[in-house]
Amino acid sequence: MTDLLLRNVRPMGGPATDILVLDGRIAAPGPAPAGIPVEDGQGMLLLPGFVEGHTHLDKTTFHEADWLVNTVGPRIIDKIDHEREWRARTGHDAGAASLAMARAFLAAGTTRIRSHVDVDTEAGTRHVERVLETRAAMQGVQEIQIVAFPQSGVLGRQGTEAALDAALAMGADIVGGLDPCAIERDPVRHLDIVFGLAEKHAKPVDIHLHEQGSMGAFSLELILERTRALGMQGKVVVSHAFCLGDIPERERDALLVQMAALGVAIATTAPPSRPVPLVAPCLAAGLTIFGGNDGIRDTWTPYGSPDMLERAMLVGLRNNFRRDDEIALAFDCVSAAGAAGCGFTAYGLDAGARADLVLVEARSLAEAVVARPTRKLVVTGGRVVARDGELLV
Amino acid sequence: MTDLLLRNVRPMGGPATDILVLDGRIAAPGPAPAGIPVEDGQGMLLLPGFVEGHTHLDKTTFHEADWLVNTVGPRIIDKIDHEREWRARTGHDAGAASLAMARAFLAAGTTRIRSHVDVDTEAGTRHVERVLETRAAMQGVQEIQIVAFPQSGVLGRQGTEAALDAALAMGADIVGGLDPCAIERDPVRHLDIVFGLAEKHAKPVDIHLHEQGSMGAFSLELILERTRALGMQGKVVVSHAFCLGDIPERERDALLVQMAALGVAIATTAPPSRPVPLVAPCLAAGLTIFGGNDGIRDTWTPYGSPDMLERAMLVGLRNNFRRDDEIALAFDCVSAAGAAGCGFTAYGLDAGARADLVLVEARSLAEAVVARPTRKLVVTGGRVVARDGELLV
Repeated sequence: MTDLLLRNVRPMGGPATDILVLDGRIAAPGPAPAGIPVEDGQGMLLLPGFVEGHTHLDKTTFHEADWLVNTVGPRIIDKIDHEREWRARTGHDAGAASLAMARAFLAAGTTRIRSHVDVDTEAGTRHVERVLETRAAMQGVQEIQIVAFPQSGVLGRQGTEAALDAALAMGADIVGGLDPCAIERDPVRHLDIVFGLAEKHAKPVDIHLHEQGSMGAFSLELILERTRALGMQGKVVVSHAFCLGDIPERERDALLVQMAALGVAIATTAPPSRPVPLVAPCLAAGLTIFGGNDGIRDTWTPYGSPDMLERAMLVGLRNNFRRDDEIALAFDCVSAAGAAGCGFTAYGLDAGARADLVLVEARSLAEAVVARPTRKLVVTGGRVVARDGELLV
Repeated sequence: MTDLLLRNVRPMGGPATDILVLDGRIAAPGPAPAGIPVEDGQGMLLLPGFVEGHTHLDKTTFHEADWLVNTVGPRIIDKIDHEREWRARTGHDAGAASLAMARAFLAAGTTRIRSHVDVDTEAGTRHVERVLETRAAMQGVQEIQIVAFPQSGVLGRQGTEAALDAALAMGADIVGGLDPCAIERDPVRHLDIVFGLAEKHAKPVDIHLHEQGSMGAFSLELILERTRALGMQGKVVVSHAFCLGDIPERERDALLVQMAALGVAIATTAPPSRPVPLVAPCLAAGLTIFGGNDGIRDTWTPYGSPDMLERAMLVGLRNNFRRDDEIALAFDCVSAAGAAGCGFTAYGLDAGARADLVLVEARSLAEAVVARPTRKLVVTGGRVVARDGELLV
């Protein structure tokens, strides 16, 4: 029942207008009911609440008193093993971590999040349980999707499959997976388990695929075969998909066409240091590609910030987007495309959408992306939840 | 005659100590004179003033009231031609632009800048004259080096060489150059002019080399030959040097060894979207590599910020530096390596250095790079010039 009249704002940098919110949703323009709360937008730029499409809320040390000195080795397996050891040693609290991070995201205008959450034989479903608590705490102001994510692999650790099964039963929304060849060493068996769990629980899939080159393309083909065979069109996301950045363009484009036909989307963090799927060829093929931070200040990486405008900037830089119309595509990766790829509904600035709104001082959408100004106002479901970058809830 | 006692600061994240500044320079630890001004560092992290090693102060629209909508084409020559046309059409004021940008750099802790400044047949030496005025305005609080930079090429525009000659005579410090093959189409003639001007004015050289692959390596070899022949060891910088990011590693390493022997340094902006010279192989070869923003919010690109901690973060991300000891190398690119590469003297935190100091709230050097906190205090030559990100001068 949250109503709001937001006066004098410029949606996506367009002409100034008023936005009427009735019962938490954007209403068609019309007379505002008497006594409705009013916010003066002062001609600021209005954006839809941002979408974080790929992060790990449970891993962060963002909220901790001590700086975590990173001394980890260069390989993915080094980082996986080090993190599990560190977690056991420090008693890392995935509940406090995820809540602090979710709140920081909200203060910076992100109202929908897809978080991969570790499930393994040591943590069991503990991280999922704690992030479910965070989700409950944020209910009404932020929507959080939980991927049951086998960060340490499934095949090498007896009991992981059962833990994933339990995590999905207790409320995880999506089945995760991980490098079927490079980490799991048995792509068919790994993917059969992942897609088997998806079928059993009638839940979508989101697979981390760091594998590069022809190995990654091979794993991707196996994923597409299973998507087709199980009728899971529109229910599969491939995260990272680095192989699409370094196989020959002709092979890449053939895969993109297949992915588009199957409604398989790509989540990218657009890392500057390695080949990545580029936005333009994905869009040309009709594919949904969207953005995420990946982990933020955790044992994997000290970088990152719960600011999706900064991620949009990094997507823009990685794709060499310089024109304003190109930078709008980078913003799309952390807004509408993220909502489409993750399946967040009632998204956007049109009438009927949930009134998740962000106001910033910027002359254009491109300026909002490159300058990343303070969030002057964040509204979720019509309720003001943050001002000047500070949470009110 | 500026004295200052900076109490309770942690140089580079080390143990807390006091820093005594006498007559604008860092003094050996010892008793402070009576009546000396005191600043309480509150245990904050102390860094040396940052070095911007490659920017274009004259080009920015950072200070302008209207957002510049970027619609420029993808090629370098598109950007060159578009900028010249835009400048003529708008009457862009290189003086106001450079002063606003230099001040914004200072507020964010940058006390030394190398700026390439356009010299061409249309602008003549006007941009150099105006940046010389900015340099004069900033004298005592910020050191600015001016590269006389033929952005539109020398060979195709009669009169550019004479304008460069005049710019050097009126006070530009360094001779610039540009893509001897790809833009100039006559590498020998271009480099003979550039090095001829350097010899005539006894000034160093800093050449923009965007050329990739074997063409870029060829141009680089021609630069090294002239450096050796003219005895210009330690006087040549190659900016961008993208070719060192995409030629075979064995060829790259052979070039790096030659460059190190000749004291030829590399300025990198570490762009996420293209191959670049990586920091680790440069350091392994004994080469100086340092960082810069390139243009900030100009007709070339809407990105960039006068914040060298952000540039250090981008260098770190581009090089996949995750460990704290690696991130220290990224910071070095915007501090000591920048000073060494550009020839800024009396740099650093040791006794005898000019007291250019920055205080930030960070637990470690790595945190300062990844979080880019507000500059709580900026000191130059012992004088407090900014607090909380705001200039006092």
